Amino acid sequence: MNFCSHCGAPVSLKIPAGDSLPRHVCEQCGTIHYQNPKVVVGALAEWEDKILLCRRAIEPRYGFWTLPAGFMENNETCGEAALRETREEAGARIELGSMFTFIDLPHISQIHIIYRARLLDLEFSPGEESLDAILLGEADIPWDDIAFRSIDYTLKCFFEDRRKGEFELHSTSFAIPSPGTYR
Amino acid sequence: MNFCSHCGAPVSLKIPAGDSLPRHVCEQCGTIHYQNPKVVVGALAEWEDKILLCRRAIEPRYGFWTLPAGFMENNETCGEAALRETREEAGARIELGSMFTFIDLPHISQIHIIYRARLLDLEFSPGEESLDAILLGEADIPWDDIAFRSIDYTLKCFFEDRRKGEFELHSTSFAIPSPGTYR
Ligand SMILES: [Zn+2]
Ligand SMILES: [Zn+2]
Repeated sequence: MNFCSHCGAPVSLKIPAGDSLPRHVCEQCGTIHYQNPKVVVGALAEWEDKILLCRRAIEPRYGFWTLPAGFMENNETCGEAALRETREEAGARIELGSMFTFIDLPHISQIHIIYRARLLDLEFSPGEESLDAILLGEADIPWDDIAFRSIDYTLKCFFEDRRKGEFELHSTSFAIPSPGTYR
Repeated sequence: MNFCSHCGAPVSLKIPAGDSLPRHVCEQCGTIHYQNPKVVVGALAEWEDKILLCRRAIEPRYGFWTLPAGFMENNETCGEAALRETREEAGARIELGSMFTFIDLPHISQIHIIYRARLLDLEFSPGEESLDAILLGEADIPWDDIAFRSIDYTLKCFFEDRRKGEFELHSTSFAIPSPGTYR
């Protein structure tokens, strides 16, 4: 951030009175420009014993597999974001279940939230950001080609909970990227 | 938003190619400035049968009661935000439990997340943003003077779950402000 989005004057990094962290402060109008974590929301949608996965048609991680997920928008709820992303990336209609994973990624200032869901019909097809959108059983999950660590974590929690016959909310945080993975 | 925070040129609202919503786009460098919901995190800290409440020394809702909570910062986890806000607003040290309420407020593009917590000692005192920080039992909660609807909801869920002897995650969304309340 170099300029004030309100008045266009240069900003500088300083600690405002009563604050403890450096912020981008406008030298002309005094506006303090806070920066905050972003929320990524997605869905793990089931159809019988299979789940809905997408193969990414965009960077980062072009060609790798993921659950439909994306940045939450202003003026929507977390659940609405999960429905929207699933429709956009997999062309799929789902019914939402409860929150399943909640993952802090402080090194990139993101939270990833995945909901359980039920696919409503088989009329789905990949959106512009996906190469494929398909249903896969546990034995066919491409474990070496999962796009993000949070998605890998979510899939592993899901199959483990399904074996136990009991699903619960899984919270974790990935403080630093693990070696050899993207995030 | 009037100006590009990257190059200082004017921005205009338009729908970028492949997108579906209007964004602030820079006419000079082409940067798309997305705006996303913010996350507010707090703690409901217990000491014996009492909980820790703060009376606000700042607007909005000066003089009203709340749980220690505030905007999550970049490069911290949700849990770290809850610890930090409790230290800043109540001068209190806590041990965090599990996520207790998750509240969507799409009309103000916020998510409020409150964790259960255990107060570690009685060495606490109000921070700069609080007039008071005190322990209160259920009978003494100032129900008519709670600062925010999400906090009122969280307190009610807490006392109800405590009576049942079983705590679970409560998710809800407040689509529009209810009459006569601030948020
Ligand atoms: Zn300015
Ligand atoms: Zn620009």
